[in-house]
Amino acid sequence: MTFRKTDEVKVLRDPVHADDRVEYEVIWKLINSRWMQRMRRIRQLGGAFMVYHTADHTRFSHSLGVYEIVRRMITEVPDIERALNEREKVTVLAAGLLHDVGHGPYSHAFEKVIGEDHESFTCRIIEENTEITEILEEAAPGLSHEVADVIRHKSANPLLPQLISAQLDADRMDYLLRDSYFTGTTYGHFDLERILRTLRVDNDFVVVKESGVYAIENYVMARYHSYWQIYYHPGARSFECMLEKLFQRLRDLRAEGKMPPSIPEFDALLSGEPMSLEDYYVLDEYACNYAFEVLSRGEDPIAADLASRILDRRLFDYMEDSPENREKVTAVLKQAGYDPEYYLTSDDVGQRVYIPYRVSAGNAIRVRLHGGEIKELSEASNIVQSLVKGKQLRDDRIYYPKEIRNLL
Amino acid sequence: MTFRKTDEVKVLRDPVHADDRVEYEVIWKLINSRWMQRMRRIRQLGGAFMVYHTADHTRFSHSLGVYEIVRRMITEVPDIERALNEREKVTVLAAGLLHDVGHGPYSHAFEKVIGEDHESFTCRIIEENTEITEILEEAAPGLSHEVADVIRHKSANPLLPQLISAQLDADRMDYLLRDSYFTGTTYGHFDLERILRTLRVDNDFVVVKESGVYAIENYVMARYHSYWQIYYHPGARSFECMLEKLFQRLRDLRAEGKMPPSIPEFDALLSGEPMSLEDYYVLDEYACNYAFEVLSRGEDPIAADLASRILDRRLFDYMEDSPENREKVTAVLKQAGYDPEYYLTSDDVGQRVYIPYRVSAGNAIRVRLHGGEIKELSEASNIVQSLVKGKQLRDDRIYYPKEIRNLL
Amino acid sequence: MTFRKTDEVKVLRDPVHADDRVEYEVIWKLINSRWMQRMRRIRQLGGAFMVYHTADHTRFSHSLGVYEIVRRMITEVPDIERALNEREKVTVLAAGLLHDVGHGPYSHAFEKVIGEDHESFTCRIIEENTEITEILEEAAPGLSHEVADVIRHKSANPLLPQLISAQLDADRMDYLLRDSYFTGTTYGHFDLERILRTLRVDNDFVVVKESGVYAIENYVMARYHSYWQIYYHPGARSFECMLEKLFQRLRDLRAEGKMPPSIPEFDALLSGEPMSLEDYYVLDEYACNYAFEVLSRGEDPIAADLASRILDRRLFDYMEDSPENREKVTAVLKQAGYDPEYYLTSDDVGQRVYIPYRVSAGNAIRVRLHGGEIKELSEASNIVQSLVKGKQLRDDRIYYPKEIRNLL
Amino acid sequence: MTFRKTDEVKVLRDPVHADDRVEYEVIWKLINSRWMQRMRRIRQLGGAFMVYHTADHTRFSHSLGVYEIVRRMITEVPDIERALNEREKVTVLAAGLLHDVGHGPYSHAFEKVIGEDHESFTCRIIEENTEITEILEEAAPGLSHEVADVIRHKSANPLLPQLISAQLDADRMDYLLRDSYFTGTTYGHFDLERILRTLRVDNDFVVVKESGVYAIENYVMARYHSYWQIYYHPGARSFECMLEKLFQRLRDLRAEGKMPPSIPEFDALLSGEPMSLEDYYVLDEYACNYAFEVLSRGEDPIAADLASRILDRRLFDYMEDSPENREKVTAVLKQAGYDPEYYLTSDDVGQRVYIPYRVSAGNAIRVRLHGGEIKELSEASNIVQSLVKGKQLRDDRIYYPKEIRNLL
Repeated sequence: MTFRKTDEVKVLRDPVHADDRVEYEVIWKLINSRWMQRMRRIRQLGGAFMVYHTADHTRFSHSLGVYEIVRRMITEVPDIERALNEREKVTVLAAGLLHDVGHGPYSHAFEKVIGEDHESFTCRIIEENTEITEILEEAAPGLSHEVADVIRHKSANPLLPQLISAQLDADRMDYLLRDSYFTGTTYGHFDLERILRTLRVDNDFVVVKESGVYAIENYVMARYHSYWQIYYHPGARSFECMLEKLFQRLRDLRAEGKMPPSIPEFDALLSGEPMSLEDYYVLDEYACNYAFEVLSRGEDPIAADLASRILDRRLFDYMEDSPENREKVTAVLKQAGYDPEYYLTSDDVGQRVYIPYRVSAGNAIRVRLHGGEIKELSEASNIVQSLVKGKQLRDDRIYYPKEIRNLL
Repeated sequence: MTFRKTDEVKVLRDPVHADDRVEYEVIWKLINSRWMQRMRRIRQLGGAFMVYHTADHTRFSHSLGVYEIVRRMITEVPDIERALNEREKVTVLAAGLLHDVGHGPYSHAFEKVIGEDHESFTCRIIEENTEITEILEEAAPGLSHEVADVIRHKSANPLLPQLISAQLDADRMDYLLRDSYFTGTTYGHFDLERILRTLRVDNDFVVVKESGVYAIENYVMARYHSYWQIYYHPGARSFECMLEKLFQRLRDLRAEGKMPPSIPEFDALLSGEPMSLEDYYVLDEYACNYAFEVLSRGEDPIAADLASRILDRRLFDYMEDSPENREKVTAVLKQAGYDPEYYLTSDDVGQRVYIPYRVSAGNAIRVRLHGGEIKELSEASNIVQSLVKGKQLRDDRIYYPKEIRNLL
Repeated sequence: MTFRKTDEVKVLRDPVHADDRVEYEVIWKLINSRWMQRMRRIRQLGGAFMVYHTADHTRFSHSLGVYEIVRRMITEVPDIERALNEREKVTVLAAGLLHDVGHGPYSHAFEKVIGEDHESFTCRIIEENTEITEILEEAAPGLSHEVADVIRHKSANPLLPQLISAQLDADRMDYLLRDSYFTGTTYGHFDLERILRTLRVDNDFVVVKESGVYAIENYVMARYHSYWQIYYHPGARSFECMLEKLFQRLRDLRAEGKMPPSIPEFDALLSGEPMSLEDYYVLDEYACNYAFEVLSRGEDPIAADLASRILDRRLFDYMEDSPENREKVTAVLKQAGYDPEYYLTSDDVGQRVYIPYRVSAGNAIRVRLHGGEIKELSEASNIVQSLVKGKQLRDDRIYYPKEIRNLL
Repeated sequence: MTFRKTDEVKVLRDPVHADDRVEYEVIWKLINSRWMQRMRRIRQLGGAFMVYHTADHTRFSHSLGVYEIVRRMITEVPDIERALNEREKVTVLAAGLLHDVGHGPYSHAFEKVIGEDHESFTCRIIEENTEITEILEEAAPGLSHEVADVIRHKSANPLLPQLISAQLDADRMDYLLRDSYFTGTTYGHFDLERILRTLRVDNDFVVVKESGVYAIENYVMARYHSYWQIYYHPGARSFECMLEKLFQRLRDLRAEGKMPPSIPEFDALLSGEPMSLEDYYVLDEYACNYAFEVLSRGEDPIAADLASRILDRRLFDYMEDSPENREKVTAVLKQAGYDPEYYLTSDDVGQRVYIPYRVSAGNAIRVRLHGGEIKELSEASNIVQSLVKGKQLRDDRIYYPKEIRNLL
């Protein structure tokens, strides 16, 4: 079977990739579906937009960017181009575009509240009779499940999930470049062109030619620096901590039958029951934010206070996490009239620069040496090996209201 | 008197200017005020973010950018540095930062609904006892009115408004660069460094040295191309037309006592009465957007339909504006069951590349020739003169639902 | 017939185009020929490298860049891809690569000395049994003449010369971008991607879709600004004037039998006889520059002085060209002991922003309107029309040694 | 005493730093001296311009760039600004500008021939009565020796040499950025702005604030990647090997009294005697290259062949260095009629990512932790520590004519 093309190539301007290009009608319809358009209302960065004031880019743009990198992989990397038939190509393009369609607002902070991860929602949206399911099934019966299978890492062709989700994949490549562009940090730059040029396929595995190792080392460092400069930035984490505390307070209030006015969809969210897709659909960052505005004028002083802090960006301060520090801060909070349950939170993060999976694992980064041998990246790169063996960097902190700082 | 400095220079990363730097405490407090933080919830581009999917940048970032260009003008341009005392410097920095603080959501589409322009709100917010008024008055009694006077073009020192709002000013310079960066169009680039280097002050007027004329020509062309590629893009205008029609419908429904559920603040908005600042405060793009979500599920079919189109980006189509076309589209709409009152709208735009004000007008662009003579730009630049004398470009269109296109 | 491919695509890093990509063996051999390698020893910019200290880029790089734009035109523009057979494609690729191979040192200043233009040398080098002729003929008998025919605008297929040399061609596109990158001026930027995307072929003519007009306007302005900021910069012209005067002095000395020592190839150069290709080959900027070093220590005081000025960048000063100014400077020069024959020179330049050729001329820029009609650019663009009708900018100057300035 | 300023700030466009700015008259005169202008005729990259065809940038541009970074250090870093008096500032600016003025052509390949390193020539040029000595002494008696002392690491103020030549200095910072820009590789990027912002002075030592560690890690990686991708690139090394072999041949021929014609200055170069500054002055890359052209037509077949290879970029091929490989290549060379003395060469390179000097050493990179303690970089950065402890990367190769490859 053949997939229908659009009349002419659709070109969407995207500063990260110059252009995103669409030529399959099914992709064009997906982009214009309401679930994809909803992605415009969810930011790419959980809390880091509070640190980098220009970083308001959305999961919609990121999704298009992942699609575009997949598109380049399947057209510009000859080995991949040859390894896939047209149906597989359309499948992986759609999977790239839709991989985040189930994301809720404010990134991972929200997932903890809802108790269901975004990948589960993504598969439900793709397979459970939404407009997206219809578009996919109309293009080819069975396609919706094949797309979801890529996201579930269950594809018949093991190559497909590797393009979307591994350690060297279109998802990570796009977000490193995109977050770098929109935050204005230079750390996330790496040489996408060179990486694409050195990709090969070897026994159903994506591998990198030895001459591409420098570019991969750069990419690994870009990830590392982006984690510490953007995703783990204390300001970003502080914002996410406050969100968590607010939702915790709301859940407790609801359990006690004292839920203050906000928006109706918050009831479904806080009930602990599985959410319907339609309730989930409404819960974008716009709805949440409006709910915060209502809450900030509401009767519960703790919820109102936390909501105001979120709206007005009065971020919690932080110090090193230790039993003594927790104790000290708890005491001061109590003394100053704050309930530590909602005003003290810990957030411990750590990141390995790179995880050396076995060379046969789907998400290992594999290097093909000049002689043809395949090695896992940390065995092919002195730099990466040094980093893997080095000490892991950790950053364990507690967060609390800034105004008590002088009492500590 | 002396204005207090922050402990160390505060540096905000901004890809458009590398960094925004703050050293006055009063500026830092203004940035952290809730009215400024509200600017994070209002996009810079009215409808163009629907055409350029990465253009979600906010008025908050733009405000910081204008501040930063003003800061560079008053520190890096020796003539300006010398012409202002510290109080005037702080005044114009604050005015740059606050010049858009009264902006409502969705740019100009919203102003038509509310019947009060954003500059009026800006001055009210600065002068009417808000947190911002307090911050300014605490720094120096009388400062709030001096800042508002810059925005009203009534400053004692005529130089101040020229830095913020003329034809060659920090506001325009920032938005051209910023909109270019975030849309990914290259048209808005111009050589800010060179322009700053060639600015001089001559009898209370900002002038450009003759050697800077090329950079100014470039800037004029950048404005011209940005208008047509971004602000007047048919997709952007289509989105704004749909917003206008939705608000028109709501006003009519309210007048008939049939207003469907949305959010409480819409009632104040549609009443035709002057809005309180607190109601205005809530009306950011997040609140409006949530209201659209509620409306899209409401009982009035026209309001629900228009709200859905806005949320799902189902843009109106367009054709040239002419009596025949209006007539034809009106007939088809009626026949297809659409009320032309809410489904047909015209939008006529035109732009001169550059307006040659008298050389003595505040907003003229003045060139100082090698010999010292001051000329208005179009007399100093053959290119600009040609453009001023050339035909004005107009683009007059009507917009209507795409689905009737086949019936036309 | 089929042209042989290289084992794998050869990729040359080029910051202007990310990469230059080569896949035909004949192209690869041409790049590695000694005549092409000679291009590494001739700068792209005549005298402007004396104004922009980073602008040492060579005609070798420019030639690869022109090749790369041609390559993108014939692969990425579907209409062009379809309009050409493989032999025509290879022909136009080779013509793009070789179009400047006959260039002498220091751009146009040198052509005046030698009395034969670089295009003539280019065709001789391609057709007269050099290594280049052999490479071409080995790839396909007759190919050398077909390549030269493109450069002579005599191709059987009229499309070919349009890609290399018209008003919107790979040559101009590359040098605007390249000179902008290496000088660090921003004026030469234009949106190459968009232009490529809007190119079409209509009856053997390259045309631009109406939606590309903004990008073309930008390109026309980029040309205009680059001319004034780079090519016509008084510093660049001053350097070229001094070169001319030095060669004039040498020619006169040789005629009188008083030629001072320099390098042997200067004798052939100054003889007025047609030069052999082998003598011409040696005369790169390295040889000339060494000759200037020898001359600067030589016995003729005027030649030694002019050569020193060139080496040490002691540029002539300038003033407006007028009979009175010429007279005044001549008088002062004589009085100060300088021979005006060698120390006063005029250089009058002028440039139209764009020349509106007939729409049927090979080098017109043609726009295809939405309805299909073809118009010449200035009829399709208000901006360009204004510029064409406006006054032409001229800059007529005389140049003389800086040290007499105080006597004027 | 006060140093004279130029009438207005002189601004030289430089894409690497936007602008290079000069305001001291003594600096302006140095830039315009013939020894500095000679730097325009010596490329920044020894052999790498043969690999990266756009990398023709010169030591003149690099010198201006180093000057510019020093200028920013002494004006924008408050601690450094305060630590130096005006004379020290002018001294270190001049030292930054002049640090490479004694460089000969083709980087380090040439130093081996001449037997005197470029730093020695630099100090001679600064101190031995050249135009440069005069300019410095005229500005302030004794200044020439103070400038040379900075280059010799003998300054009274130990801060001065740290700015020019340490592991984190203006020289390295400029060449990483510059070589990255002109080669088009992205590997050399690092965040200069952030590094400048986090520099402090602590007990006469330049230190970096802890919050700048990420930027320094990035800088260290940029150096590492630039070494392998640019400076140690096999193509670059091959070119330098051929240069060495050619000079070795010429020295041997001269010793035997069989020196073929080239240029007179080669005689002084090959004599083994210390060179006069005037002979050295002439020996720029232009003179050498012309000499190669003469040699390539000369009578000694080996010198002629090697010179042709250099001119036409027929690079030697390479393989791993090992006793067996040397033996094998030697045998094949002899058999094919090549003298291994001039056609086989080894080149062994290795680089540590970073060298952890003692914290008290001038060229250590020092980090000041939040608490005030000073640590050497590898103790403050897990990443750098991992790299220091990891295996050193080495690349040991032999180089030989490509045409014998098939015989191996």
